[in-house]
Amino acid sequence: MYDKVLELLESKNFKAIREIFIDMNEVDAAAILQQLYDEGKVGNAQLPLLFRLLNKDAAADVFAYMDTDMQMVLINSFTDRELQEVIDDLYVDDTVDIIEEMPANVVARILKNADAETRRQINTILKYPKDSAGSIMTTEYVYLHKDYTVKEAIDRIRHVGMVKETVNYLYVTESRKLIGVLTLFDVLTADDDDLIGDIMETNVISVDTMEDKELVAKAFRKYDLLSLPVVDNEQRMVGIVTFDDAMDVMAEEATEDFSKMAAVAPSEDSYFKTSVFSHAKNRIAWLLILMLSATLTGAVVNHYQAAFAVVPVLVSFLSMLSGTGGNCGSQTSTMIIRGMSLGEIRMKDFFKVVFKEFRIALLVSVILAVVNAIRIILVYYGDTTVDCYKLAFTVSLAIMVTVVLSKLIAAMLPMGAKKLGLDPAIMAAPLITTIVDTCSTLIFFTIATIVFDI
Amino acid sequence: MYDKVLELLESKNFKAIREIFIDMNEVDAAAILQQLYDEGKVGNAQLPLLFRLLNKDAAADVFAYMDTDMQMVLINSFTDRELQEVIDDLYVDDTVDIIEEMPANVVARILKNADAETRRQINTILKYPKDSAGSIMTTEYVYLHKDYTVKEAIDRIRHVGMVKETVNYLYVTESRKLIGVLTLFDVLTADDDDLIGDIMETNVISVDTMEDKELVAKAFRKYDLLSLPVVDNEQRMVGIVTFDDAMDVMAEEATEDFSKMAAVAPSEDSYFKTSVFSHAKNRIAWLLILMLSATLTGAVVNHYQAAFAVVPVLVSFLSMLSGTGGNCGSQTSTMIIRGMSLGEIRMKDFFKVVFKEFRIALLVSVILAVVNAIRIILVYYGDTTVDCYKLAFTVSLAIMVTVVLSKLIAAMLPMGAKKLGLDPAIMAAPLITTIVDTCSTLIFFTIATIVFDI
Repeated sequence: MYDKVLELLESKNFKAIREIFIDMNEVDAAAILQQLYDEGKVGNAQLPLLFRLLNKDAAADVFAYMDTDMQMVLINSFTDRELQEVIDDLYVDDTVDIIEEMPANVVARILKNADAETRRQINTILKYPKDSAGSIMTTEYVYLHKDYTVKEAIDRIRHVGMVKETVNYLYVTESRKLIGVLTLFDVLTADDDDLIGDIMETNVISVDTMEDKELVAKAFRKYDLLSLPVVDNEQRMVGIVTFDDAMDVMAEEATEDFSKMAAVAPSEDSYFKTSVFSHAKNRIAWLLILMLSATLTGAVVNHYQAAFAVVPVLVSFLSMLSGTGGNCGSQTSTMIIRGMSLGEIRMKDFFKVVFKEFRIALLVSVILAVVNAIRIILVYYGDTTVDCYKLAFTVSLAIMVTVVLSKLIAAMLPMGAKKLGLDPAIMAAPLITTIVDTCSTLIFFTIATIVFDI
Repeated sequence: MYDKVLELLESKNFKAIREIFIDMNEVDAAAILQQLYDEGKVGNAQLPLLFRLLNKDAAADVFAYMDTDMQMVLINSFTDRELQEVIDDLYVDDTVDIIEEMPANVVARILKNADAETRRQINTILKYPKDSAGSIMTTEYVYLHKDYTVKEAIDRIRHVGMVKETVNYLYVTESRKLIGVLTLFDVLTADDDDLIGDIMETNVISVDTMEDKELVAKAFRKYDLLSLPVVDNEQRMVGIVTFDDAMDVMAEEATEDFSKMAAVAPSEDSYFKTSVFSHAKNRIAWLLILMLSATLTGAVVNHYQAAFAVVPVLVSFLSMLSGTGGNCGSQTSTMIIRGMSLGEIRMKDFFKVVFKEFRIALLVSVILAVVNAIRIILVYYGDTTVDCYKLAFTVSLAIMVTVVLSKLIAAMLPMGAKKLGLDPAIMAAPLITTIVDTCSTLIFFTIATIVFDI
């Protein structure tokens, strides 16, 4: 479809482009405009022309799905009237998302062209802290009173319910306090004279405005919700979080965990939107810390120079040993960090986890040790410079101790971090590997000096 | 709440427990039963008694949220009549999920007690491959004909629309082919005499029964959908996927990526549900492969025994060097694997990614090299056994080459894997680290033999 639009654009057949856009989903239309813009087929001057080809009803939706750069170009080209129309059609939470990315002068212009009620709603959402439920909610929802009849309720829904994604649940309030919930289906299948108070469900799941948005997303998944009311500390309803924002939070949180676990400072922007300089900045801190901590392993090696002066082949096992220890550790820490972030593993499971990892480590380490011993005996059998059995015993014993130790460390550190109020995800592969490196080197040389009697 | 139920249970106050359950969300009730069962407060004999305290309307929902072990205990204790009631109240896709986990004799009993229509629907879903859209869909949805009036449509919805989560969208079919969609809100706000065909949206997003469920989940997030119709290869509608299943798929896919990236074979079960033996089995294969590949690094070290016989301090930098290379590589591979799985990075971006990583690597490596050189000169200045400037130069140059190389390898391998039809997630930290280990050791000793003229 992109190629077709591009072709029509080159032959300046705008009428045909308009026809295509009419039948197209808003998300897809936004994606095509985005690609045209990103690949330089459409410049800042032409973009507004193309945008005006969109159906009026769809324009605001398409606008909401564009990236910040394109939105800014369009806002700068809009007349006040056009800007007003787009803002009117946008959901308030989408307007807030846009405002948060724009420079001050554009924000001022958006607020100036929003009507008083929208402006009040925007300011309500903006005042909540960045990761709170309040910051991701929308203030557009349908509320009813418990003494409405079903017929009155339907009239009200017709009147205010222009926001289609939010009308699946209807909330019932009394002096602004949330007292019940019902679905559009409940209303549709009730009798005209039934009272809302009689057919509503009174056991409503809600979250506080200051609740962490990650917990909000978890609640959606736990209770299979389509939307979740947000209440202030006096149980007064202030907004709802819709499922699409909850899905985005879920995906963002997973991306954040991936970044942290790879020793990268998480970024809000996508890979390509982040500059080379920002990427480097996000990565350098941990690299420096880990590089300097590795000095400790170097010090251990230096301490044992005498050992590998006598049996130089020992050095060739260091990398395998620390690699295996690191891999064992990162397997464990990843499983546990993910388990904690899904809520499957809780703090009270500490000893259960450690004991389980201990048994897994025993099983795994025996297999690794045996395979390793066989390999060493096969390779070094008949070698006159070193006793192959002593070597196999030394390396295999070191593997066993390293594997058990690294799995225990990797099980305990993430949970310990959480206990201290730190993010468990920082206790992932890179940090564990560095710690295990030092330990495995120390273990190996200690065993070697005893076995080879150095 | 759990403590309260436990207390009431110990004093055998079942009436009070029933009161509590009546006001409780089904998910929470299931969680409390689960905890009582897991902690051994309720045995196999008492569980059915407790289950029968639940409100009839809620029982099937609570049942759906329990784990397989508890479901099996309950099914075995149910009379045929009780089993029939639960199956009648369950959504068909939930019944299928349960069936997939049960042994053959239990499955036979479930199918025997399902009515003919439910059995047909269960079999329809079961025939689709494990990761397809067909396998996660439900066959319960509301479809209308285009020549229905709104009034007729509402009557039909009242009649068949008992499944509340699926009636937000109504699908319009003609000779079973999907031709349109509308929301409950559209129906509610239209006039009684309007024709469905006139108010429906004809541009419907749908997926094929055989579509990968991961792509289905992506479509939900991309288009902000609540449900998505599933059609066969002749565009005939066979079911819908609901958003709660899409959210579960999203979370499962992220967990799978976490597992693979930590060199663990992914498991469907949670951490605690997986046995020690299965955990060990999921982890051992990659550990063995990586342990044996590390032999290559050992061979490189052995080859350069002469070098560290002359300058033994060289050995102490191996761990820092391979650690830094590994960390740089895992930063890059994680960013790229995540970017690909979110669809932000596509195959055609290959050279863009490689060039971007190259520039990031240059920036990062210069900083690491400078810090490292300063550290070495500070520590080894005045040391008579080694020239501190030569040492600093050797190690810092090796760092630069290693960092650039590891970031390039880590950028190319995941995309290369995808090109070959493999899962990019296997090209994560552990494999990259092992490859980078060998390279960094080789680079380091090559530079060292030249600089120190060994």
